Amino acid sequence: MSDDLLTRIHGTADLKALYPEQLPRLAQQMRQYLIETLAPIGGHLGAGLGVVELSIALHYLFDSPRDKIIWDVGHQAYPHKILTGRLSQMPTIRQYGGLCGFTKRSESEHDPFGAGHASTSISAAYGMACGRDLAGDNNQVIAVIGDGALTGGMAFEALNHAGARNNRLMVILNDNEMSIAPNVGAMSSYLARIITGKPYTQARDTARRLLEKLPGALDAAKRVEEHVKGMITPGTLFEEMGFRYIGPIDGHDFDHLLPTLTNCKELDGPILLHVVTKKGLGFTPAEDDPETWHGLGPYNIETGVPHKSNGKPPTYTQVFGDTLADMADENDTVVAITAAMPAGTGVSRFGKRHPERCFDVGIAEQHAVTFAAGLAAAGRRPYVAIYSTFMQRAYDQIIHDVCIQNLPVTFCMDRAGIVGADGATHTGMFDIAYMRNLPNMTVMAPKDEAELKAMLYTSATLNGPTAIRYPRGNGYGVDLQGADVLEVGKAEVLAEGDAGLVIGVGTRVRDALSAVETVRKEDGESMTLLNLRFIKPLDEAAILYHLKPGNPLVVIEEGVACGGVGEAIATLALKSGWSGPFTHLAMPDAWPAHGTQDEILRDMELDAAGILKQLRS
Amino acid sequence: MSDDLLTRIHGTADLKALYPEQLPRLAQQMRQYLIETLAPIGGHLGAGLGVVELSIALHYLFDSPRDKIIWDVGHQAYPHKILTGRLSQMPTIRQYGGLCGFTKRSESEHDPFGAGHASTSISAAYGMACGRDLAGDNNQVIAVIGDGALTGGMAFEALNHAGARNNRLMVILNDNEMSIAPNVGAMSSYLARIITGKPYTQARDTARRLLEKLPGALDAAKRVEEHVKGMITPGTLFEEMGFRYIGPIDGHDFDHLLPTLTNCKELDGPILLHVVTKKGLGFTPAEDDPETWHGLGPYNIETGVPHKSNGKPPTYTQVFGDTLADMADENDTVVAITAAMPAGTGVSRFGKRHPERCFDVGIAEQHAVTFAAGLAAAGRRPYVAIYSTFMQRAYDQIIHDVCIQNLPVTFCMDRAGIVGADGATHTGMFDIAYMRNLPNMTVMAPKDEAELKAMLYTSATLNGPTAIRYPRGNGYGVDLQGADVLEVGKAEVLAEGDAGLVIGVGTRVRDALSAVETVRKEDGESMTLLNLRFIKPLDEAAILYHLKPGNPLVVIEEGVACGGVGEAIATLALKSGWSGPFTHLAMPDAWPAHGTQDEILRDMELDAAGILKQLRS
Repeated sequence: MSDDLLTRIHGTADLKALYPEQLPRLAQQMRQYLIETLAPIGGHLGAGLGVVELSIALHYLFDSPRDKIIWDVGHQAYPHKILTGRLSQMPTIRQYGGLCGFTKRSESEHDPFGAGHASTSISAAYGMACGRDLAGDNNQVIAVIGDGALTGGMAFEALNHAGARNNRLMVILNDNEMSIAPNVGAMSSYLARIITGKPYTQARDTARRLLEKLPGALDAAKRVEEHVKGMITPGTLFEEMGFRYIGPIDGHDFDHLLPTLTNCKELDGPILLHVVTKKGLGFTPAEDDPETWHGLGPYNIETGVPHKSNGKPPTYTQVFGDTLADMADENDTVVAITAAMPAGTGVSRFGKRHPERCFDVGIAEQHAVTFAAGLAAAGRRPYVAIYSTFMQRAYDQIIHDVCIQNLPVTFCMDRAGIVGADGATHTGMFDIAYMRNLPNMTVMAPKDEAELKAMLYTSATLNGPTAIRYPRGNGYGVDLQGADVLEVGKAEVLAEGDAGLVIGVGTRVRDALSAVETVRKEDGESMTLLNLRFIKPLDEAAILYHLKPGNPLVVIEEGVACGGVGEAIATLALKSGWSGPFTHLAMPDAWPAHGTQDEILRDMELDAAGILKQLRS
Repeated sequence: MSDDLLTRIHGTADLKALYPEQLPRLAQQMRQYLIETLAPIGGHLGAGLGVVELSIALHYLFDSPRDKIIWDVGHQAYPHKILTGRLSQMPTIRQYGGLCGFTKRSESEHDPFGAGHASTSISAAYGMACGRDLAGDNNQVIAVIGDGALTGGMAFEALNHAGARNNRLMVILNDNEMSIAPNVGAMSSYLARIITGKPYTQARDTARRLLEKLPGALDAAKRVEEHVKGMITPGTLFEEMGFRYIGPIDGHDFDHLLPTLTNCKELDGPILLHVVTKKGLGFTPAEDDPETWHGLGPYNIETGVPHKSNGKPPTYTQVFGDTLADMADENDTVVAITAAMPAGTGVSRFGKRHPERCFDVGIAEQHAVTFAAGLAAAGRRPYVAIYSTFMQRAYDQIIHDVCIQNLPVTFCMDRAGIVGADGATHTGMFDIAYMRNLPNMTVMAPKDEAELKAMLYTSATLNGPTAIRYPRGNGYGVDLQGADVLEVGKAEVLAEGDAGLVIGVGTRVRDALSAVETVRKEDGESMTLLNLRFIKPLDEAAILYHLKPGNPLVVIEEGVACGGVGEAIATLALKSGWSGPFTHLAMPDAWPAHGTQDEILRDMELDAAGILKQLRS
């Protein structure tokens, strides 16, 4: 079918063979393809739809992999993947064994830098630009960064560094007025002012009118106009940071994109091209509700309605959001902080009931934590809701601003452990290791959603920093009414027996219980099962009480083995003089693949079957 | 003595009792006092001298502790400490049992937020401002931040958040054109342009000339001038970020400071006051060489010459700097990155020999690491020299940009372990725990400066991320010629015997050796001593080989016990079926005090005497 341009694209050479006039049709076909392909499997649809034309224009004019195109948060990279020879694999994206949902160096030479977290692209691109210049090469390096990611502090650090030097670097600001949730902050207002363009237009018009009325004053007036223009181009802020600012241009119009990008190729030094796009363009439901459509599961392509998971128990996220809102009803010092993810973290429920006590700080985890420390120092009870993997961004702030000062900030770490389709970059595998080593910190992990609720209430009774880690996905549908305050540092005995001691941590307790019960029923061996609850402080008394010389000791946690709480328990056991078979079931010292949570847990033998196998061996 | 104003100041009330005309004399006396008091003990002299007048003006006009004054990096806070009742304790600053060298909440109610790391003050202040507004209070919250600290990304995140809202907040930019080293980056140039003021002056003059020449065009021209003025006030960048910009004013002139600060008190919303100061003002040597005089040991008050530690062996920092420069001579892909600390990290030696391959990115650890990852992706061999405590700022970038992609970036972590006078905020106590849990990472710790050299050469042979941790201070004066490439993952046997196994890590190996030798000589007991060298990968074979059932196993490391490598060794021992007395000598789960390194090590019983005591028990 001569009309079908998309299936002709097996690589960038096929794209370059097209006439410019064909590009809009290619864009239209790609958009349709994305909507249809992702309907049954889900994925990051909105971001990809927003950069269809930009991706085509970049690969049409630049020469990847020689030229390096670095997509900030690789979820914008679906069109890029299609154009660089990965069209046929697109239906496998984010699935076990399939394409990664982000850019990935090992997946393609066209992915010069992997990215799952935001705001890294300018730093990486500038590193590559300096490396290129040291090597005496002359390829182009291009970072494509969203306006949301631009609020991340490290993007500013990179602008500050690159803007003061003269290495050739192109930063494309993909301005869709959205990161995941609608953007917040001064930068967002600033960009909006640029697009509406009042100051620039107004000042220019004043100068023009002056020019028309006073022909004799032409020279002087012209000089003023130059000044006005030079000083208040729309991108003053970027110009002040040392970047040549170009734009704003329409990111869906090839008549803007192609000539502008062609011109940009000729420029030296650091330049910033401001491209205005619309997230979700071409799929009405995604255009209308970009937050929901940022990344999602399967959806109905006719109605645009995401397939509901009817009758499933509430997610941990929902229980967290509801509980925190309830706590705030009762205690007016409770405040909530999110870093650009009110819906993802469940904080939006809180925000609806207590808008004045809910702070969305933008993609700015570092500020989020120190801001919370400031609130705590002013007598508030802050709850910082950040995914486990993104909390890594604020490690120093947790240490320096919260723990050293022993301030009562609670870190609510959603998506702890295996996250599934998002893979290695998003896996919450380190938080047990990087939290439990901090003085003053209490670290908890609930076995189910009722215990999450109890742990939130428990945190309110503590006078220092607290971290609660809980997983992505649904709870077990347990009764939430009975949730109560827990005794700090006290484990729960879920089974008792003399055949060994099994210690389960958080998410792995239920599967451990199932395995222990199977062993009891089928093999007639009764083991003791402790639900650890507190990763720190450790319930040393309970562990030592249940440890029997020569009997097996098994610790199961959904985090890395190196530095995990299993090592603390092993050390305790060793110090106590105990010996016997010790097994530490935890995530291996390697990067996890992507797939469903169940698939990854199965691979790591951390599901009920894997635990059972280990208990029997 | 009626002339002596300083000794009258027992608290801010005594300051407020003075007449404005007396303040310059107080400033002069305070300056002299600081120079004289710090001469025998050392300290952060330059920063304090720069803010004498600003500190006096703030406490004269504001009402601490009700009003909150938050000093970014508390080392600017010496005058603040003097004014808030701590004059008599100043001679104890940074010494064991004495005043902290930074602000500290537990030290005084006038220190509302502690800070040893840079760029946190705006976040903390804005948190306090929001807390104040939620509580319905109306006190002032003031952050005083240096121009260097402003390049840290989290300061930008905080500006972005606070600038978009209307809570009352005062940010004072203490612009001394220096952080520790001369500032780099676009922000620094921007501030310099403001101070020299060319664009503003020039544009205003053009408009004026127009006005004079064409009286008939008065209205139109006036409108243009207003535009020009409105659009390009010196602080455009801050205005674009939502702050009301005021300044620049002379930070050493009370006639500027007092009326401006008085006016600022009346303003609502977020404001930024730009104050220009001179670091080290009043002490010629410090004015002339602010980098050396940032923070230092005792000095000669007459000549301004720091007391030399004559004849001492080279520091680890020096050996690192020299070795890296040598490596770069031999290998032109070697590049070095520092985050605003070229001298402190030893990178300045490299920079002198290879300026084009030496990158000072400003106070921007996050960018430093991802920038290095970009350089590595472009075929370079980056060495990132950042103190252990500041590396915490880049934890996510180490994980997400370096380790997941397995890029050959080497992290050179100076000041690992006890740092002495700087205390808890600067102690490098977590790096073993937060590095060894990362897949692909190799972690090394040298026992002396020759081994540091060997480890640097070893890192060049590795194809993935590497971290080397080494301490503050002098080496042992060992021969550096013999340094060679080490076998990866292989420990060194320093003593052999059948009375037990001692495993020393990095800095603690020498003291362990001394203790083991004393035990052998005095008690006739021979123990095996392993110098671990590789924290990761662990030399499991060597450890298991030397482990004898029932014999003591002792691990000694200068880092936190929780998550330390001692736990990995204990786990290995337990899994192997070994049992016997296990002792983990490491830093306790608490924040260390400040004092000399020897004093703190002695307190923790991690020095030779402490180790000996443990070996004997």
